[in-house]
Amino acid sequence: MKKIGIIDIGSNSIRLMLIEVSGNYFRIIDEVKETVRLGMGMTEDNRLNPVRIERAIETLSYFKSLCEGLGECELFPVATEAVRRASNQAEFLKLVESKLQIKIKVLSGVEEAYYDYFGVINSMDYSNVLIIDIGGSSTELIWVEGKTVKEAVSLPFGAITITDQYGIREKMNSTIEKELNTYLLSQFGRISWLGGATNLPLIGVGGTIRNIARISRKNTNYPIDRSHNYIMDSADVLNLYDYIKFNNSEQRKKIKGLSKDRSDMFLGAFSVVSALIEFCSSPQLIVSGSGIREGLLHEILHGDKVINDVLEFSINNIIETLSIDKQHAHHVWKLAESLYTQLQPIHKMNGNSYKILKTASLLHDCGKAINFYSYHKHSFYMMASLPINGLTHKELIMAAYTMILSVKENFVLDKSPYVKLLTKEDKLIVQRLGTILRLAESLDKKRNGNVTDVVCELRSDNLFLRLLSEGTTESERKTVEDRGSNFYKLFGKTLELE
Amino acid sequence: MKKIGIIDIGSNSIRLMLIEVSGNYFRIIDEVKETVRLGMGMTEDNRLNPVRIERAIETLSYFKSLCEGLGECELFPVATEAVRRASNQAEFLKLVESKLQIKIKVLSGVEEAYYDYFGVINSMDYSNVLIIDIGGSSTELIWVEGKTVKEAVSLPFGAITITDQYGIREKMNSTIEKELNTYLLSQFGRISWLGGATNLPLIGVGGTIRNIARISRKNTNYPIDRSHNYIMDSADVLNLYDYIKFNNSEQRKKIKGLSKDRSDMFLGAFSVVSALIEFCSSPQLIVSGSGIREGLLHEILHGDKVINDVLEFSINNIIETLSIDKQHAHHVWKLAESLYTQLQPIHKMNGNSYKILKTASLLHDCGKAINFYSYHKHSFYMMASLPINGLTHKELIMAAYTMILSVKENFVLDKSPYVKLLTKEDKLIVQRLGTILRLAESLDKKRNGNVTDVVCELRSDNLFLRLLSEGTTESERKTVEDRGSNFYKLFGKTLELE
Repeated sequence: MKKIGIIDIGSNSIRLMLIEVSGNYFRIIDEVKETVRLGMGMTEDNRLNPVRIERAIETLSYFKSLCEGLGECELFPVATEAVRRASNQAEFLKLVESKLQIKIKVLSGVEEAYYDYFGVINSMDYSNVLIIDIGGSSTELIWVEGKTVKEAVSLPFGAITITDQYGIREKMNSTIEKELNTYLLSQFGRISWLGGATNLPLIGVGGTIRNIARISRKNTNYPIDRSHNYIMDSADVLNLYDYIKFNNSEQRKKIKGLSKDRSDMFLGAFSVVSALIEFCSSPQLIVSGSGIREGLLHEILHGDKVINDVLEFSINNIIETLSIDKQHAHHVWKLAESLYTQLQPIHKMNGNSYKILKTASLLHDCGKAINFYSYHKHSFYMMASLPINGLTHKELIMAAYTMILSVKENFVLDKSPYVKLLTKEDKLIVQRLGTILRLAESLDKKRNGNVTDVVCELRSDNLFLRLLSEGTTESERKTVEDRGSNFYKLFGKTLELE
Repeated sequence: MKKIGIIDIGSNSIRLMLIEVSGNYFRIIDEVKETVRLGMGMTEDNRLNPVRIERAIETLSYFKSLCEGLGECELFPVATEAVRRASNQAEFLKLVESKLQIKIKVLSGVEEAYYDYFGVINSMDYSNVLIIDIGGSSTELIWVEGKTVKEAVSLPFGAITITDQYGIREKMNSTIEKELNTYLLSQFGRISWLGGATNLPLIGVGGTIRNIARISRKNTNYPIDRSHNYIMDSADVLNLYDYIKFNNSEQRKKIKGLSKDRSDMFLGAFSVVSALIEFCSSPQLIVSGSGIREGLLHEILHGDKVINDVLEFSINNIIETLSIDKQHAHHVWKLAESLYTQLQPIHKMNGNSYKILKTASLLHDCGKAINFYSYHKHSFYMMASLPINGLTHKELIMAAYTMILSVKENFVLDKSPYVKLLTKEDKLIVQRLGTILRLAESLDKKRNGNVTDVVCELRSDNLFLRLLSEGTTESERKTVEDRGSNFYKLFGKTLELE
């Protein structure tokens, strides 16, 4: 299978992402990060430090060998701020090319911002947001409207530069904090359009944001170990900042969730987030696990075309890369969708429940890839762990519950670890969706699409089902009869087969 | 892919197992059970009850349609005791063939016993055991020596017949219990060879045994939800029997782990197990999840040849059916094995640790099939859930710990749910195996077998590693240096690269 290696040469770290590609779909097979800090110790006249260049060359040579190890593997190396502003950039690029035959593409600030946007927009289901990516020595802001870039800017400061300029590697006092905050607000003030991007959800890309999220998850004993699409109220983010901003490095090391190799530049980076939330009165901070590298990957896969249904794309991506019975999965969803739509007058559920049912239907027996026995448990684990995009964590968990209730109608929600994320109403929703999926699944019991569709007719307290099929349908009718039992309990209608 | 449908027509239930086959390997994709109770209500002159025959035909027709739904799918239908002894057997077979074009093979008692044996021996790593399969109206005993059948017998009583004969569907009193026990012991006494099969582990096939095991697991809060190869001390089994034998059906319904549709015939079946343990002074009762159906499957796959390494077979089966980098997996195991063998003088570990390391090596990154991020957690979940044979549950968990420690050397064992199964020594073993696997994995960091082997040389307190390769090995050396850190802590030797 075709392999791709994306190399991201930042000011703080150099990263390699190795991906297996088939058609439009992909699977990440490896990721390596080296903290080279190419942006550190640059001279007055912006020359890259020779020692750092040396480390960079070693790292790139290592990454190249990893890529070559995979056989046919195409490299896509890009560089950002440190190389971008280096006065000896040309020299550096020539050195790399002559020594390693690697042609690095230096991204302009706007290109960098674009790839951030493209990574986010193809892995999250948001239309109007402000995106921030805090790098080592640059910070990108992208204003997204209707899933397209309205404005974008790359600011020449980041975690490293701020930390060094304000000497806050060890700790920060209130004077410095005020200075820094004033500086940042003034920087934001200079961006003509930023005043328009207020009250929008703020989507954060990069390690600092993931770290803030990890701290928040640890604080709240959040049951799900997943940072992509984790949502924080801005108030909580600002409280966290106030709570730790005067900690010294020792105290910071004790903060649960803060990774050691980030703690020294954490204040510098966090100050930017906090100032931006203040400036734009952003209501929420949402983590994106996808950024530049994923943006590049998506461009390689499907050009500049934005995926309009990220949920469906990510699910198809999973179905392609796991041994899931594709035809059965899609047919069960077709039947579930038909039931869901026709039953709308009874269940009156909203669009989110539709997405939840779709996810549960398409992945309902993915667990069989692990073990047929207790496959519902494996499907549950997988649905909580697979790279599914376009659902909130809660919706994801609701999809997993829908699936498990479709297999085990008496599954006891309240004994499960994630249930604290669900309200009483949510529980009813998954019970009902589970029943619909259970029906749909039994209608394709033969896994061959024999029942092409189902027609529902409501007559007083009865729901009559008519199964459309070219062939005989005894087996499906039989399974429906066996399984339809708790339909009445949840929908108040008696299920009848015509 | 080729599909196979195995139908098992028993006295109590008729079961269908659908399997996807590629070469020697297989994946179970569906299983259906219908409680037809064909052996119930037979006349004095052993005629099958017409009502039961009707139900059987319906069920077989349903199963046939399920199989046909998969497209190219070959049926293998077999019948046991009820049909075997039916005076109207020929009539029944003709009826099924004319109505459904299904040719049922009626297994003799000895054939039935053979398939039990063949299912067990190809999925468990035991050489000398006694196997029992308690069916609805027959019970098979197989004496296995050196992985081959020494003696086998099929007894004409089972869960249903005993329950009915002694009228203990509701409850049993001490008089009946004594009678029944005397009867069973006399039956066993008539088996000339059974006196020789004493003090052997007793392997139990069938729902009754799985049920006894589930009750035991619930009682002891056993952390692993897996019945295949679950081991119980006979004393505990007999205690359990004494504890519940005088319960009435209501009380039995309250027993945690006892499935409702078995509780009515549970005493009848359990009495057989208890009597046999007494008669043969079997030290342990071990559950087998594989029986007749798996025996048939293995015959279809590889004739009458016994798999001599069930562990390797089951792991390869998994690698074939999951998207795992086969070449990398096997090469990491090759390197790990080489290190393990050469380091024997230092670690002095035994054969079990070899099997554990092998399992961990071959499956170390299976979790990437779910999600690259946190793949070690997914690998851990999968290793505890995959159909891996030939390891005890404890060894299986140790393999999972070995794997996770090879990825996260600071993983805290004591916070994990399964750790209660491990002794202090076990913990040291997995720490060491984890370090060996970590080294091996880093030696194939490029995933291309660049480092073909490694030569270890002990000089006083240092262990010198020489990497054999056709090409350059900087990257591997680099990774080893990064990772070798805790080697000293665990082996008391400083790691040096030559």
